[in-house]
Amino acid sequence: MNEIERWGFFELSLDGPSDGNPFTDISLSAVFSQDNKALKINGFYDGNGIYKIRFMPTKEGNWSYTTESNCEELNNISGDMLCISPSENNHGLVQVHNQYHFAYADGTPFFPFGTTCYAWVHQSRELQEQTLETLKNNCFNKVRMCVFPKSYSNNSNEPELYPFEGTAPCDWDFTKFNPEFFRHLEQQILKLMELGIEADLILFHPYDKGHWGFDSMGREADDRYLNYIIARLSSFRNVWWSMANEYDYVKEKCKEDWDHYIELTAKNDCFHHLLSIHQGDVLYDHWNPNITHASIQLGTLRGTVSAGMGRLKLLRDAYHKPVIYDEVGYEGNLIQRWGHLSAEELVDKFWQSIISGTYTTHGETFTHPEDIIWWAKGGTLRGKSPKRIEFLKNIVKDSGLYGLEPLDRWWVIDGAGKNGSYYLYYFSYEKPEKWKFELPAFKIDVPMGAKFKVEIIDTWNMTITPVEELYEITDKDRYHYTCSYNPTVTLPGREFIALRIKRVS
Amino acid sequence: MNEIERWGFFELSLDGPSDGNPFTDISLSAVFSQDNKALKINGFYDGNGIYKIRFMPTKEGNWSYTTESNCEELNNISGDMLCISPSENNHGLVQVHNQYHFAYADGTPFFPFGTTCYAWVHQSRELQEQTLETLKNNCFNKVRMCVFPKSYSNNSNEPELYPFEGTAPCDWDFTKFNPEFFRHLEQQILKLMELGIEADLILFHPYDKGHWGFDSMGREADDRYLNYIIARLSSFRNVWWSMANEYDYVKEKCKEDWDHYIELTAKNDCFHHLLSIHQGDVLYDHWNPNITHASIQLGTLRGTVSAGMGRLKLLRDAYHKPVIYDEVGYEGNLIQRWGHLSAEELVDKFWQSIISGTYTTHGETFTHPEDIIWWAKGGTLRGKSPKRIEFLKNIVKDSGLYGLEPLDRWWVIDGAGKNGSYYLYYFSYEKPEKWKFELPAFKIDVPMGAKFKVEIIDTWNMTITPVEELYEITDKDRYHYTCSYNPTVTLPGREFIALRIKRVS
Repeated sequence: MNEIERWGFFELSLDGPSDGNPFTDISLSAVFSQDNKALKINGFYDGNGIYKIRFMPTKEGNWSYTTESNCEELNNISGDMLCISPSENNHGLVQVHNQYHFAYADGTPFFPFGTTCYAWVHQSRELQEQTLETLKNNCFNKVRMCVFPKSYSNNSNEPELYPFEGTAPCDWDFTKFNPEFFRHLEQQILKLMELGIEADLILFHPYDKGHWGFDSMGREADDRYLNYIIARLSSFRNVWWSMANEYDYVKEKCKEDWDHYIELTAKNDCFHHLLSIHQGDVLYDHWNPNITHASIQLGTLRGTVSAGMGRLKLLRDAYHKPVIYDEVGYEGNLIQRWGHLSAEELVDKFWQSIISGTYTTHGETFTHPEDIIWWAKGGTLRGKSPKRIEFLKNIVKDSGLYGLEPLDRWWVIDGAGKNGSYYLYYFSYEKPEKWKFELPAFKIDVPMGAKFKVEIIDTWNMTITPVEELYEITDKDRYHYTCSYNPTVTLPGREFIALRIKRVS
Repeated sequence: MNEIERWGFFELSLDGPSDGNPFTDISLSAVFSQDNKALKINGFYDGNGIYKIRFMPTKEGNWSYTTESNCEELNNISGDMLCISPSENNHGLVQVHNQYHFAYADGTPFFPFGTTCYAWVHQSRELQEQTLETLKNNCFNKVRMCVFPKSYSNNSNEPELYPFEGTAPCDWDFTKFNPEFFRHLEQQILKLMELGIEADLILFHPYDKGHWGFDSMGREADDRYLNYIIARLSSFRNVWWSMANEYDYVKEKCKEDWDHYIELTAKNDCFHHLLSIHQGDVLYDHWNPNITHASIQLGTLRGTVSAGMGRLKLLRDAYHKPVIYDEVGYEGNLIQRWGHLSAEELVDKFWQSIISGTYTTHGETFTHPEDIIWWAKGGTLRGKSPKRIEFLKNIVKDSGLYGLEPLDRWWVIDGAGKNGSYYLYYFSYEKPEKWKFELPAFKIDVPMGAKFKVEIIDTWNMTITPVEELYEITDKDRYHYTCSYNPTVTLPGREFIALRIKRVS
């Protein structure tokens, strides 16, 4: 019997007809069952008379399947497989955990520290290899990437492959997919999986505007495309669905279209991959129950950067879901204001978002003689932010928490963690020379005499300096604990300083 | 024929049975019609065998009506009235205008500058008179006030009247209203109308917790109460429905209850008064289409007050509706952290919210030997914020706009107005000594050579000082206009300074 690891990848390949239009003429699905559980999974045509059905077993033990098709050859084919324990680096799909955070299906925490390479799979094979090598040597565990190629400033080269049969730039038969295009996409997503990276797959985007017409195929072709990609990709455990980048800039679709595509995807994806939609100007209604987390673009507010934390937290409070600031501007030197953040500004945003109980995505936009810019095409990273982001990522991992939480809703915005055991405060552009040792006390019980270790973190220079003396807490007022013999922490008076406070007894 | 002014108040009074329980036994309504328009309005029992139907004609001309009742005496009574032009101070109901702002039905702008006197109608007659006198002498044009009495710290006195038949504190017949209670409430709402003040009427609140039990009457009694109050009050043009104060602190009701009460009210109120709900910790889903505007409590974040503007604006972007920060803490000296804002802090919040395209509500909590605290009971105002709030209100009125709008979405948070003609910048706790003269230019056309008058506003000292020279704009870069011969504005280097920039040619 086939042995497939849990959250692994089962593929049934069947020979069938290749005449007519197999993409539209042939329906194919299979019901996979184990005990009382049964899942109906759609198959797809992969060209050359080959039909495939893919399945990701989410529970160990025997699974059996039977196909269903309007084509005799493909109908009523049965088989089974044994789902075995996952291998060491397979933790399953990432899902929402503790309302505002994420974890793999096996319970391992997942902290999204993503990056952005919108069109990396549409570049030369050599450049794609370089991108993968760069990803391997950096900390990013999620990549925002588009299915469709991108036509935009600094990104005007044609891809090698196109998703449909036809002739570039805009003579396509939207009823016929190009399986080679999708096989290539899948191969690259599998390489990301091997690197432990989630593919935050952008299904639609506005960077087309009549060049290829993939942003304006119409409802019927869009539905077919979504179903095809769900059939092909939903058994890849590292796929997230990002319904669109800057959905509101896609002028050919309206809010109802997006609601429909989101509903279709949520309904037809049996494995419930994370599902989000990213905006340009107009925030989507992320209360839509099909949306698993709010994927947000937020202008960078240069010059008022220290105003961020209360702001970043607020959308969490408004949506009651995890929030990922998937676009906050890029480290680089482009003329566009979103494309010339300093590394300090970008790293500061990462810290602000963590302190707000949310997450941020990286991107880099340094000009390049051949326009090989990470944000669009991948290649190499040249900025100073990635290793500081890794430093933060390690701090978050070391917290032992699933994610940092507000300490005192509405009233504390520069600190997060878990009351009583772990506190992380961050001062952004402020340069305090001392910090009043005060921990939140309102409706929070910490026993008198509990001792805390304080460490001073220089987030830019990536140093962690312990304060020698321990802090023992006493009551101060109805809202605060303090330390009577040691009421302040001396700080270096520089920007970008954080404090880590951990209970030791 | 009866002559009733537009948005005025028509009342049909009918004699009927007083035996049994007229509140539950007798159904009464009337259909009011004009041309093709017909509105079915519920009547109510006002005690002593008197039944009433109230109507607010919203269109001039003849209206006719016919009653419907399960009681022969009250059934099929017809009549008519002539709706005439409104009198000078009658501008109709306040409604949402330009998506994020408000206007009266006749198109007159309405800028909500409200205050908070939760339980003023439940105090002694003398104190109520004093409250009205204070309101008359201040600028507030909206009052947050509860229907039910309030039992809370600094607010433990019993009211003179109760909404139901029975015996205080908690022996009530929820099937029988006390008409006298409601007549008194109406009288006070009418007095507010005469003062040009909107009654932001709080229908439920958690400040009861078993004392009277009005927070836990059950779904059936709650529905009956809402229908009774809609029948009585929806013909008062200055009524806003605030479904609850701190809805999430009412432990006896769940989200589905609130959704239901909101839907009932939106459906049964033929006149579509503004309808909101105010939270403690958990923001309501203000995307609910029945909600007309987001009524928000936001912790005051003392010590990080300058972080507010991007934050206050964000909920507007998230909800796509007007936002009123109906609770931001109070000017006063209570021990609770929400009750001891300085006047400076509160006035700062008003400015921040206006610059964010939103609105804020005032409240005052100075301790008093007899606990006569404005926020709960009314009386007199002792704080320093009201006249500064009035100063701001006049500036907003003088803008000639329906409300200040963001100048450059996401990228400018310290200024608002209308690009090309009117700009208001505000520096909060910052103390800049000069301001770079830069106006937003991205996708905004202002003709080269346009001239602007600049005024420096001291929001605390309430002065407006014009800068002598005019500023003529030239292109600077893709995002900014500047003035080449006069690139900065000299500022006083104090806190709470604003700039008003108006086009003069």
